[in-house]
Amino acid sequence: MGVTVLPDLGTEILIPVCAIIGIGFSIFQWMLVSKVKLTSGSAASNNSGGSGKNGHGDYLIEEEEGINDHNTVLKCAEIQNAISEGLDDVIANLQQIQALLMVLESLLLTSCFLGEWLAMKYTSSFWKGHILDCATSFLFTEYQYVGIFMIAFAILIFVFLGSVKGFSTKSQPCTYEPLKFCKPALATAAFSTIAFVLGAVTSVISGFLGMKIATYANARTTLEARKGVGKAFITAFRSGAVMGFLLAANGLLVLYIAINLFKLYYGDDWEGLFEAITGYGLGGSSMALFGRVGGGIYTKAADVGADLVGKVEMNIPEDDPRNPAVIADNVGDNVGDIAGMGSDLFRLICRVLFSVGIIVCLLTTLFATDFFEIKAVNEIEPALKNQLIISTVLMTIGIAIVSWVALPSSFTIFNFGTQKVVKNWQLFLCVAVGLWAGLIIGFVTEYYTSNAYSPVQDVADSCRTGAATNVIFGLALGYKSVIIPIFAIAVSIFVSFSFAAIDNAGGIAEMAGMSHRIRERTDALDAAGNTTAAIGKGFAIGSAALVSLALFGAFVSRASISTVDVLTPKVFIGLIVGAMLPYWFSAMTMKSVGSAALKMVEEVRRQFKTIPGLLEGTAKPDYATCVKISTDASIKEMIPPGALVMLTPLIVGIFFGVETLSGVLAGALVSGVQVAISASNTGGAWDNAKKYIEAGVSEHAMSLGPKGSDPHKAAVIGDTIGDPLKDTSGPSLNILIKLMAVESLVFAPFFATHGGLLFKIL
Amino acid sequence: MGVTVLPDLGTEILIPVCAIIGIGFSIFQWMLVSKVKLTSGSAASNNSGGSGKNGHGDYLIEEEEGINDHNTVLKCAEIQNAISEGLDDVIANLQQIQALLMVLESLLLTSCFLGEWLAMKYTSSFWKGHILDCATSFLFTEYQYVGIFMIAFAILIFVFLGSVKGFSTKSQPCTYEPLKFCKPALATAAFSTIAFVLGAVTSVISGFLGMKIATYANARTTLEARKGVGKAFITAFRSGAVMGFLLAANGLLVLYIAINLFKLYYGDDWEGLFEAITGYGLGGSSMALFGRVGGGIYTKAADVGADLVGKVEMNIPEDDPRNPAVIADNVGDNVGDIAGMGSDLFRLICRVLFSVGIIVCLLTTLFATDFFEIKAVNEIEPALKNQLIISTVLMTIGIAIVSWVALPSSFTIFNFGTQKVVKNWQLFLCVAVGLWAGLIIGFVTEYYTSNAYSPVQDVADSCRTGAATNVIFGLALGYKSVIIPIFAIAVSIFVSFSFAAIDNAGGIAEMAGMSHRIRERTDALDAAGNTTAAIGKGFAIGSAALVSLALFGAFVSRASISTVDVLTPKVFIGLIVGAMLPYWFSAMTMKSVGSAALKMVEEVRRQFKTIPGLLEGTAKPDYATCVKISTDASIKEMIPPGALVMLTPLIVGIFFGVETLSGVLAGALVSGVQVAISASNTGGAWDNAKKYIEAGVSEHAMSLGPKGSDPHKAAVIGDTIGDPLKDTSGPSLNILIKLMAVESLVFAPFFATHGGLLFKIL
Repeated sequence: MGVTVLPDLGTEILIPVCAIIGIGFSIFQWMLVSKVKLTSGSAASNNSGGSGKNGHGDYLIEEEEGINDHNTVLKCAEIQNAISEGLDDVIANLQQIQALLMVLESLLLTSCFLGEWLAMKYTSSFWKGHILDCATSFLFTEYQYVGIFMIAFAILIFVFLGSVKGFSTKSQPCTYEPLKFCKPALATAAFSTIAFVLGAVTSVISGFLGMKIATYANARTTLEARKGVGKAFITAFRSGAVMGFLLAANGLLVLYIAINLFKLYYGDDWEGLFEAITGYGLGGSSMALFGRVGGGIYTKAADVGADLVGKVEMNIPEDDPRNPAVIADNVGDNVGDIAGMGSDLFRLICRVLFSVGIIVCLLTTLFATDFFEIKAVNEIEPALKNQLIISTVLMTIGIAIVSWVALPSSFTIFNFGTQKVVKNWQLFLCVAVGLWAGLIIGFVTEYYTSNAYSPVQDVADSCRTGAATNVIFGLALGYKSVIIPIFAIAVSIFVSFSFAAIDNAGGIAEMAGMSHRIRERTDALDAAGNTTAAIGKGFAIGSAALVSLALFGAFVSRASISTVDVLTPKVFIGLIVGAMLPYWFSAMTMKSVGSAALKMVEEVRRQFKTIPGLLEGTAKPDYATCVKISTDASIKEMIPPGALVMLTPLIVGIFFGVETLSGVLAGALVSGVQVAISASNTGGAWDNAKKYIEAGVSEHAMSLGPKGSDPHKAAVIGDTIGDPLKDTSGPSLNILIKLMAVESLVFAPFFATHGGLLFKIL
Repeated sequence: MGVTVLPDLGTEILIPVCAIIGIGFSIFQWMLVSKVKLTSGSAASNNSGGSGKNGHGDYLIEEEEGINDHNTVLKCAEIQNAISEGLDDVIANLQQIQALLMVLESLLLTSCFLGEWLAMKYTSSFWKGHILDCATSFLFTEYQYVGIFMIAFAILIFVFLGSVKGFSTKSQPCTYEPLKFCKPALATAAFSTIAFVLGAVTSVISGFLGMKIATYANARTTLEARKGVGKAFITAFRSGAVMGFLLAANGLLVLYIAINLFKLYYGDDWEGLFEAITGYGLGGSSMALFGRVGGGIYTKAADVGADLVGKVEMNIPEDDPRNPAVIADNVGDNVGDIAGMGSDLFRLICRVLFSVGIIVCLLTTLFATDFFEIKAVNEIEPALKNQLIISTVLMTIGIAIVSWVALPSSFTIFNFGTQKVVKNWQLFLCVAVGLWAGLIIGFVTEYYTSNAYSPVQDVADSCRTGAATNVIFGLALGYKSVIIPIFAIAVSIFVSFSFAAIDNAGGIAEMAGMSHRIRERTDALDAAGNTTAAIGKGFAIGSAALVSLALFGAFVSRASISTVDVLTPKVFIGLIVGAMLPYWFSAMTMKSVGSAALKMVEEVRRQFKTIPGLLEGTAKPDYATCVKISTDASIKEMIPPGALVMLTPLIVGIFFGVETLSGVLAGALVSGVQVAISASNTGGAWDNAKKYIEAGVSEHAMSLGPKGSDPHKAAVIGDTIGDPLKDTSGPSLNILIKLMAVESLVFAPFFATHGGLLFKIL
């Protein structure tokens, strides 16, 4: 919708140029990453058929080429040694690397496109082969199911939208300019269906590609991390950039091509073109939902299950190969966070101003990799903040330049028939407010979820009196962390609306949303599960709120509703039911994780009981059964929440009509934002409270530790509870509110014509 | 507002008659209760100065008069014996009684006015004297603080409302009938202030009275329980009836007298009269808020603290006199649940159709005490359901009769200037739908929180894998339990709006609310903390939603807003910020409970460490310090949440104006309902999952137990987390949404005239 804002010249040139720059840049970065060499291609086959001394050595990285050849080989040899001796040193080593990577992730926040490589946090090349195999097979199973859904839904779109004018092939007067003739509704139905399928397929490919890239980059970063923080950082950063730029630019290009092809038919019928192209967003969003929910259940079932038995009962470290659920856990990290994000990421791309973002991100990436050199782990956190501020400042300048140079000093927004004159400085203000609101949300989130500040330290302290107080404090922290972000969102909504498009939520709030959205790929930081992940989620939900609001405005406009009056019963019941949906959805996903985790725990316990020598490391666990439990659970359990999200707009629209649907969208939006923010931050805080106790860097932290102490056990319980909150329910809610809005938008003409059956009968 | 619906005759006769019947009935019931005699008057002094064999015997009931004299004295002697031997038998006995009382509470749900006596669950006459002293002193301390608030707020009301017309003493044209002249705004300001003070004082007295009655009835029921279930039930029921009828009828009478006195001045100026009388509701609500929040923090701090050390660490039973926090805990049960509820209860009374409710409740009470005889504990749960259905059927019939006989077949609702013709059957339908929605909410809540059904059993089962899965399942259960109640609320809102007053949410939704409200005194069931409490809370929140909506409608009307359009930025930012408020509020109250509990735990641990012989029962704990911790915490911590609720409407109204305030009210309503229901049910389910494991009545339950097993420990953690959720945050949210609505209503003329400063400046 934002397309109308820029002059045609911008649209025609800026998009493809930026997309191509993005792709070129990502290829360049890729080449740099590829210089770090592993025995990548053959690793998988080696692994599966390996027969090392103790069943683990066979997963090791065996060779490396490059500048630091000698040292690295030495290190690798060392590690291999350690493994044969019982894995202890490696684990310590891995933990260091893990800690490093977690901080690295923070820095990556500043690269707008950091991609999905972060799953490396838990994975190492030990089981890289296994994971890639399993992840691929999981994704294929998942895609079979969503494929069926995709076809069914495509048919639905065609039938519903075609029926708006009784499948007539005649041209009709346009809705907003009744003097002009527009293409028939049947054509729009057909093109919407095509766009939907195109969006879905691109999203699936993005997800798959993302996972492949991540797994590839993964091992390389781990290896580089052994050489030093700086090296690892650059590799990690570049991998992220590859993924981000490639996927983003790819999505942008597909959209650009689709628009231009559709235009061949539509000509100057912008109304029809926009309607048709909305299908693209729906396709992308729905795939992202399934990827995210299915993956989220998969990863957290395995994670919770593995932790409960491994860390709590058997007292073996995280990601220990003796734990039968460990492969499932790591597969989960890849498929859940990565593939889901990949799709998610892609979905965010279909925007124009985004192209400015690409350039800014490019600059920021250069800053990160070439101007600053990170030498020690403790330099990373301050660097993160600098980068965050630098990228915001650069972005503000970039947008200011675009506003002053590329845009006329005042121009008319043509937004579904309503016209509004907007000055370029107003436009700039809208976007800038959104941008800085994002910065505030980021810092607030950091404050509430980083163990450098008192909130998390208080939560850690409450572990002294057990898990119960830990949970109470954690929940309270999550609730409290909602306050400032909501104010920030409210301010940016208000500014966007007031200066630009009051009449309609459509055009400009969308643009303010965009600046958020450019940051939304920090959503990818989910994979990390710590402060930066929470920051990423904070951005993501803020952006989701603005985008949904924009889509909501567009829906209201397309459905020809003049006001959405809370005091009418139709709207109010929608509002209260909509506010309930995030709870329903969270209940489903959390219960799913819980049930699957229970099964996983029982299986892991069974294996420890029945496989002799497993705990001693002399026998191999049966990874496959655990993987199967996760796979089955996620495939089975992803259907009800998916159905809830996809069917609600349809049912409400058909039986209750567009007013009630407006209420539902508004309700789901205002309630979902709160649930999502509090869930993410509560989970993040518990995670870091545990890490705070484990790290024991201050006197206070030491008084709570060490690992295995009662407070630490209480902290682990909190961390486990937080997993489904922050990695399954919370992040899926973004998609819930956006997907419902975009689906309503696609079906708006149908609902407006044939909807509200129940009220028509009464 | 409902007053206008009934013909004057009804208003004039029905209210005082019903109020007097209620008071008469309660006196009659009181006489029956009083037949159970204890050494009530002197118990307190005896206790404090006692010097029994082991420091505990001195708290015992020593004598009893009545029909079963011989048996009871024998039993008491037995028990006294047991105590000297180490309290074990008594505790077992108490546990039986406690179990009995908990089921009894269920039955009381059906008595609409069951009052506050339920705190007897935890208390017994052992420390009755202590508790009464402490509770009284806590209440006096609390009332000192709220007294200051009351005066300050009264001044605020007078100044703000007086300033609407610049403190002019001249009569002015009426708002809704501009041809008529109404009393000056200054008079309305004065009368509003008087009504506010009157409401606050009546509320405070109700709370205090409620606590006294409860503590009195308490010991009597406990004693009767020793004779048999039937006897105890009747006593308990009658005590509940006394309290309920007395407070309800009292509140009704005060309101009636106030209205009639005000009328002497106002004459036929209904507008002014209504405006002034709204102050009464504000006074009652604000006192209820402080009572509820302060009491909630007090009781749960003590409860959580006592449980954590007592049950989890020291392995001594609940309410064991060796636990230093036990007195604070029991005081809490009295002051928090009881006084809070008493005020709360009172607050619900200012309604007209309520009088019908009194008669119905009277009948139901007779049913409960005289037509059915409860002989065994397991007869109580089915009896509860019967009673619930009977009372709903009776109520439906009662309302039907009132609608057909007392109301004209069609009449005009005069509601702040808008007129609407309503048929009597439509009115009946509105109320009936609300009533049956209440029944559905009740049954759904029971399903999700009773351990007779699979949801709680699943939660109990998840304790097998530890506290983390228990918490995940419990949270998911709470979220899920929101679904059906929300649909029920939505349907009753829709019917109420559609058939009666569409234009305006005021009049009729209010009436549908009333039927809920008659059940809202089941809110009192809070004190119990189990299924019925959750049911009571379910009703309460359902009713709160409808009442707030009605108040909201009245506010919109009084503030002269024509529509509350979600798509205007002013309203939308209000909506999203309003939806955040329940989280902010919950964060405050939960954190308060957590902090106070931490302090309590440390004090209790200190006492166990430093007082020799405490655990063995040979030394007395220092109860007073624990009581002081709870008192200080609740007084201190009640201020921020109280300020949040009281200041939000003022700040929003003054700086952002009435549109934004409308958004805030709607947002807080739709979001608060969800948070409150899920918090109550999650807490209730955890509580009952623990009890399920403890009771061990099924094979499944036995496999999880016994007490002290790992699953049981996990269940105790869940139960502890649930305490602040279900007893502090959840129930306070009802008041939050209602209080904000009534406050907005009172200040509506001021906001409409002088509000929205910020937007005026921009």
